Amino acid sequence: MSGTNQRIDGKRLWDSLMAMAEIGATPKGGVKRLTLTDVDKAGRQRFTAWCEALGLTMRVDAMGNMFARREGRDPTRLPVLFGSHLDSQPTGGKFDGALGVIAGLEVMRTLADLNVVTEAPLELVNWTDEEGSRFGHSLMGSGVWAGIYTQDKAYGLKDVDGVTVSDALDAIGYKGAHPAKPFPADAYFELHIEQGPILEREAKQVGIVTGAQAQVWYDAVVTGRDSHAGTTPPSLRRDALVAAARVITLVDNLMRARGEDGRGTVGFLQVLPASRNVVPGEVRFSVEFRHPLDAEIDGLAATFPAEAARLVAETGCRLDLTELFRIPAQPFDPACVDLVRQATQRLGLSAREIISGAGHDAVYVARNVPTAMIFTPCKDGLSHNEAESILPEEAEAGCQVLFEAVVARANRTA
Amino acid sequence: MSGTNQRIDGKRLWDSLMAMAEIGATPKGGVKRLTLTDVDKAGRQRFTAWCEALGLTMRVDAMGNMFARREGRDPTRLPVLFGSHLDSQPTGGKFDGALGVIAGLEVMRTLADLNVVTEAPLELVNWTDEEGSRFGHSLMGSGVWAGIYTQDKAYGLKDVDGVTVSDALDAIGYKGAHPAKPFPADAYFELHIEQGPILEREAKQVGIVTGAQAQVWYDAVVTGRDSHAGTTPPSLRRDALVAAARVITLVDNLMRARGEDGRGTVGFLQVLPASRNVVPGEVRFSVEFRHPLDAEIDGLAATFPAEAARLVAETGCRLDLTELFRIPAQPFDPACVDLVRQATQRLGLSAREIISGAGHDAVYVARNVPTAMIFTPCKDGLSHNEAESILPEEAEAGCQVLFEAVVARANRTA
Repeated sequence: MSGTNQRIDGKRLWDSLMAMAEIGATPKGGVKRLTLTDVDKAGRQRFTAWCEALGLTMRVDAMGNMFARREGRDPTRLPVLFGSHLDSQPTGGKFDGALGVIAGLEVMRTLADLNVVTEAPLELVNWTDEEGSRFGHSLMGSGVWAGIYTQDKAYGLKDVDGVTVSDALDAIGYKGAHPAKPFPADAYFELHIEQGPILEREAKQVGIVTGAQAQVWYDAVVTGRDSHAGTTPPSLRRDALVAAARVITLVDNLMRARGEDGRGTVGFLQVLPASRNVVPGEVRFSVEFRHPLDAEIDGLAATFPAEAARLVAETGCRLDLTELFRIPAQPFDPACVDLVRQATQRLGLSAREIISGAGHDAVYVARNVPTAMIFTPCKDGLSHNEAESILPEEAEAGCQVLFEAVVARANRTA
Repeated sequence: MSGTNQRIDGKRLWDSLMAMAEIGATPKGGVKRLTLTDVDKAGRQRFTAWCEALGLTMRVDAMGNMFARREGRDPTRLPVLFGSHLDSQPTGGKFDGALGVIAGLEVMRTLADLNVVTEAPLELVNWTDEEGSRFGHSLMGSGVWAGIYTQDKAYGLKDVDGVTVSDALDAIGYKGAHPAKPFPADAYFELHIEQGPILEREAKQVGIVTGAQAQVWYDAVVTGRDSHAGTTPPSLRRDALVAAARVITLVDNLMRARGEDGRGTVGFLQVLPASRNVVPGEVRFSVEFRHPLDAEIDGLAATFPAEAARLVAETGCRLDLTELFRIPAQPFDPACVDLVRQATQRLGLSAREIISGAGHDAVYVARNVPTAMIFTPCKDGLSHNEAESILPEEAEAGCQVLFEAVVARANRTA
C-alpha cells in the first residue's frame, strides 16, 4: 500500500504552512501564537476547517488537545496518531510544531486524493501548550494526556496576568468534553524541525530520532556579601559573581568531558544588586545537564552538587543548589523507528540516527504509545527565533517519510 | 586658638543628624533624599534655617551648591571650606554625606557658643548631587564647580522621566545666581564615613585620608551565539556566559595579584536572552579597577584588554571592551592632611592613614583647593544601604578632628 508512487504534495504542504503562519505573524517573519489566546483560537479554527473539509471528525479533550480522526477499514484496530503542536513561542518561527501538524494534514489530504483507506484508523493531533511560555509548564497538553501532570494542576496554572489555564480554555471555547487521559493507540509519529545544527552540518535530509535525552535541572543561588567596589580590599570580599563564574566554568567542563553527546548549560543568570560599583552579594542562575544515557546524568547528579559547593566555598560564599527535576532518557519504539529508517532508505534520502536534544510532546506520549520522531534540518540550527527557517524540499522530504511510516504502521499485518 | 577645652557638642551633633534623617526617612531606617526632588528641597531648607539661626550668610550657585559663610577677622584671607553633600542614594543611609554637612554645622555652632572668630572666613558647603543616582553623573555639583563638567552638560542631563537638571533646579528653586565655578579658597576639609571595612576591622577611630585612588572603568560586551541548550553539541557552541566567566575570573586574579591595595570588580552583568534552555549569545557587563598608584592602573589598562580578548576568543566568542574613563590618583594636600593627623594625636584618638576607596566631592575640589578628608568607621563597612550605621562617639570624634583641623587652618600664620 505504500509505494514510490504515493507522493504527498510538497507545494500544497508549503502553502498551508505559510497560511498557518499568517495567524500571529510578526514583522520579522516569525510567529507569535501563544497558547489559549485568541490568536491560538484562530489557528485552531483554521486547522479545524481544513480537517472538516476532508471529512475528518474533530474531537477536543478537556485540555484542548485536538484529535482529527479518519476511519480505517478495520474498526477493531487501535488508531495510529501523528501530529505536533500549533502554539508558538513569543518570538517563534513558522515551523516549530506547525510543521508536524500541517504535514499530518498533508498526509490526510494525500490519502483522500488517492482514495486510500488504511486498515487502522488515523488521528491527526494538535497538542495544547507544548511551548510553556505562557503558563510556565511546557508539554502541558500532552503531559496531562500522558498522566505526567494532573488536570487539576494544569487547570490551576496562571499566566503573568493571573489568568488560569481553565479560564483560558473556556475563553477560547476549547475545553472539550472528552477527558484528557491516555486512550489506547497503536503508535504515534511526530515530524519536527531538529532545532539543532547537526543535520545541517552533516548535510543530512532527515533525522531518524531514536529517543530523547535524560536531563537534570537545577536552580542555584550563590550568596556572598554586597560591598563597595572601591573600599573593600580583596581579603574581605565575598563576591558572589566570582563564585558563580567558577560554577559556570565547571558546568562547561563537565559537559565537554562527556564528548559531543554532553550538554551542560547555564542559560539564566541574574546578579544582585547589579550595580557597577558594588561587589555582588547574590547571583541566581539555572543549571541543566542532558545526555542520552541515564547513567551519565545520574553520575553528574551525584557529583556536581558537592563539587560546585566546594568551589563556591573557597571564595567565602555559599551555594544553595536545588534539583528541580530529573527526566529519564526516553527511548523510542524500535519498530516505529525502523519504519522511519526504512522510509528514508526507500526514498533514497540521506539520513542519520539522532537523539532529540529538545523536549517534545512525543517524549511524554512515548510513555504510553509506541512512538518515533522524524527530524528535518533547520537553518543554522536556529529555533525559538523569528528567523527559524527550513527549505520547502526539506519539509516535503520529512512529510513523505511521515506519510510512509504512518501508512506502513496503519496497514501492518497484526 | 585650638585647645583641648574647645569641644564640639556630640549630643547636639547626633540630634541634628537624626533630625536631618527624618527628611526622606525610609521604613528600614534609611534615607531616600534624591537630588533636586522636593525631599532634597526640604533638607536644604532645614539646613538653611539652621545656618541662618547662626547668622551665617547663605549663597547658592547656579548648580545649587550651597555655601554658608561665617566671616573671619581678616577679610583679605581666603576662606576655609568644609562640608559634604545632603543628597542620598535611593536606599541610602543617614550618614553618607549628611555627616560631613551636619558636623560642619556643629563646628559653626561651637564657634558661636565660644564666641570665637577665626582669622580666615569659613564656608560650610552642601554640594549638589554627589550620588549621581538620579541623573547618572556622580559628583555633579562639585564637578561643575571644579571645572570637570561644563554647566551646559550638567544642565542637559536627564533622569528616567526626562526631567533635566536645569528644570529640576528651577522646580525646587535652587538655581542660584552665583556662577558655579571655582573661587579662590585656602583649604577644603570633608568628614565622611569610610564606606569600607578597614577602620572597623583595625579598631581605629579615625582615618587620616591621604588621597583617592586611580581608577579605570570599562563596558564589556561578549558576543557569542544563542542556541538551544539541548540540541547544540559542545563543538558548535559559542557560549557568551562561559566566555564572560573567564573574564570575571581574570579581573579577580588581577586584583589579588596587587595585594590588599588592589580593587577589581565586575558589578553589573546582564545575560541575553537569559532563558534557562538557551545557550547565552550575549553578555554585557562592567569592569572596574582601582589602585592608589597611577602606574598600576596604567599597567592594567595596557595589558587587561588584550588578555581578556584572548580568553574570550578561545571560546569562539568576541569581546568588545570600551574604556569609559580613567581617573588619575588624587593625592590630598600634605599640610592639610598633617593638620588632621595632628588633631588625632592631640586628641589621643587611634587613627591610621587610609586611601579613599570611594569617590567624594573632595576629590574634585582637590584639583583647585588644598584638601584633606577625615574618615569615621562604619558598621560592617556598609554604605549605600539603609542599614548604614555609625556610633555617636565616632561621629563626635570625627567632628572634633574636623573642628580642630578647620580652626587650625583658618588661624594659621600666613
